[in-house]
Amino acid sequence: MSVTQPRGFRAAGVVAGLKASGRPDLALVVNDGPDHHAAAVFTTNRVQAAPVTWSRHVVADGRADAVVLNSGGANACTGAPGFQDTHRTAEHTADRLGVAAGDVVVCSTGLIGERLPMEPLLAGVDAAASALAPDGGPDAAEAILTTDTVPKTAQATREGWSAGGMAKGAGMLAPALATMLVVLTTDAVVDPSRLHAALREATRTTLERVDSDGCMSTNDTVVVLASGASGVEVDQDELTGALTEVCADLARQLVADAEGAHHDIAVQVRTAATEEDALEVARSVARNNLLKCAVFGNDPNWGRVLAAVGTTAAAFDPDDLDVAINGVQVCRGGGVGEDRSLVDLGGREVHIDVDLHAGDAEATIWTNDLTHDYVHENSAYST
Amino acid sequence: MSVTQPRGFRAAGVVAGLKASGRPDLALVVNDGPDHHAAAVFTTNRVQAAPVTWSRHVVADGRADAVVLNSGGANACTGAPGFQDTHRTAEHTADRLGVAAGDVVVCSTGLIGERLPMEPLLAGVDAAASALAPDGGPDAAEAILTTDTVPKTAQATREGWSAGGMAKGAGMLAPALATMLVVLTTDAVVDPSRLHAALREATRTTLERVDSDGCMSTNDTVVVLASGASGVEVDQDELTGALTEVCADLARQLVADAEGAHHDIAVQVRTAATEEDALEVARSVARNNLLKCAVFGNDPNWGRVLAAVGTTAAAFDPDDLDVAINGVQVCRGGGVGEDRSLVDLGGREVHIDVDLHAGDAEATIWTNDLTHDYVHENSAYST
Repeated sequence: MSVTQPRGFRAAGVVAGLKASGRPDLALVVNDGPDHHAAAVFTTNRVQAAPVTWSRHVVADGRADAVVLNSGGANACTGAPGFQDTHRTAEHTADRLGVAAGDVVVCSTGLIGERLPMEPLLAGVDAAASALAPDGGPDAAEAILTTDTVPKTAQATREGWSAGGMAKGAGMLAPALATMLVVLTTDAVVDPSRLHAALREATRTTLERVDSDGCMSTNDTVVVLASGASGVEVDQDELTGALTEVCADLARQLVADAEGAHHDIAVQVRTAATEEDALEVARSVARNNLLKCAVFGNDPNWGRVLAAVGTTAAAFDPDDLDVAINGVQVCRGGGVGEDRSLVDLGGREVHIDVDLHAGDAEATIWTNDLTHDYVHENSAYST
Repeated sequence: MSVTQPRGFRAAGVVAGLKASGRPDLALVVNDGPDHHAAAVFTTNRVQAAPVTWSRHVVADGRADAVVLNSGGANACTGAPGFQDTHRTAEHTADRLGVAAGDVVVCSTGLIGERLPMEPLLAGVDAAASALAPDGGPDAAEAILTTDTVPKTAQATREGWSAGGMAKGAGMLAPALATMLVVLTTDAVVDPSRLHAALREATRTTLERVDSDGCMSTNDTVVVLASGASGVEVDQDELTGALTEVCADLARQLVADAEGAHHDIAVQVRTAATEEDALEVARSVARNNLLKCAVFGNDPNWGRVLAAVGTTAAAFDPDDLDVAINGVQVCRGGGVGEDRSLVDLGGREVHIDVDLHAGDAEATIWTNDLTHDYVHENSAYST
């Protein structure tokens, strides 16, 4: 049921005609209250799309009534006219819903550097507003896809309340967010500051640890809306737990559907001196093109893991590094361990364990292999 | 004439049988003096191959009599036994040449994590020592290749003296060196400390600015030998100039022969506040997989350039960024500039200019596109 799993929400997804394919490309999620609390996290890229600049201001006061999302164009690097387009989209949506434009979050995804076709987009807003339904979550999830092959939705149900979510993102899944648009909802009763804290914590160990190709988007947005419609006041840990469950589920789906990937790779770094060290090492391994090609070729090339670890500033002794690939300890003490031919990379799931023997912190980054299909999809995307 | 262009050097390249292909795989370069001065720079990867650890000590006193190089195995991540293998190679070479083992630089390249077959390797040293010749430079350049398709040699001739060099490296060309083995020679009269300073400066703006895939090798070595055989004392600028000319020529050849590349890309960042800023931005663009795929597809996707710039900490205003691709100003003031369809990416050379409008520093990084062939070569390399 996606974003309409919790009470107090309606959603819709329609064909506005922004995509040449004719697939759904405009989604609307509305919070009918009684609360209209909201929080969001955005890309840390300094080149930010117009909708990111806009939406940052919208959620600053902790209130949002609706989220309007389009695929088929990122509205990034479009200057002042692009910002006007975002503003106009919010105003048009607000008019149709009878709310304030300053309470409408806008998200866009697609090619950078092109203006959005506003006429079909605004007509799409009208159509979506007319189609809003308490079971519209799946339609909305469909309309935000770009090169994704399947919609991504998740929910976490609790005693008397729930959380739900939808996500798009394939390729460009990256550090501190990615070309990832995520809308989360909950009917719990929670004030905006607690909602923001829970969102930060939920994304920190889930969506922010997905790193498909090391590239960071200009448009990443994760927004959460709280309707309070359940009447249930939840404590902070419960709320964080439910949002984390939804985000973790969505993160797994994003990796599984990353552009052209044949393997899903979990890089788990353990016995690190600090979590920061573990993260730095895991990201370095996850971004190593040579290793990612090797995994595509079912080649457990642990030398490339060590070469990636060696580029970091993390605390470790090069002669005391262990690497296991899918459970086989191929590198022990910085040198040759078990026979690499014992490693089975025939399946989709690959688990690379790195032990730094420098402490007891750990972190995992999820990524993908580098394949012919990745090259193909990303060389043909804008043409 | 490669490393035997300057007087005072002999070289050889032979088939030792380390490569399954049966191609030449062992090279020897000998400095017959009268001077035996040497300097070197090595990978900054903290996981270093045995020959790097060994050779660092060899050149520490500014003297080296010979360089022995093998392809067909990197001798990295091989622990104490691997270091013994390197030591033994140096001792064997020294015995054959009548020099001290501590004056023999050793370089290895190939797969990480496997021991070298010492019997054929040492027999190869014998064969190479017997084959040493004053015109053996091209043979040596042939024997150090791995996935390279052509040998890489260069020389700079001056009034009465010269410099020469050979290089191998394809893929894994990276930051502050790469899987790059480079031997430079000169017959100028120069003391070791000046030689080292000239080498540092020559590599800083050439070999260290080649970044094929962002991966940093465990084995990178650039070593220079000075024989003094010309009897010509050169000043520091002349020496630096000649070594820079040779390194720049080799760097261009390395990029042109990078694994599976279809385009050579120069990312030039101008009007940066500092050279460090320019370098950070150029590397970020040069490592962006999405952009590298786009170039492969002849797609001037400047949005991906801006997204890469936006991930850096360099000084710039997102609304004051200009990007030109092959001379067409596709992005102006952070937004749409000239029509992207005007960009011709049909040739091998691609020039991406980024203007930060934050100062007057500049830097260029040379890289390649990301292609099906890159994925293929690097997924099949060890199998």
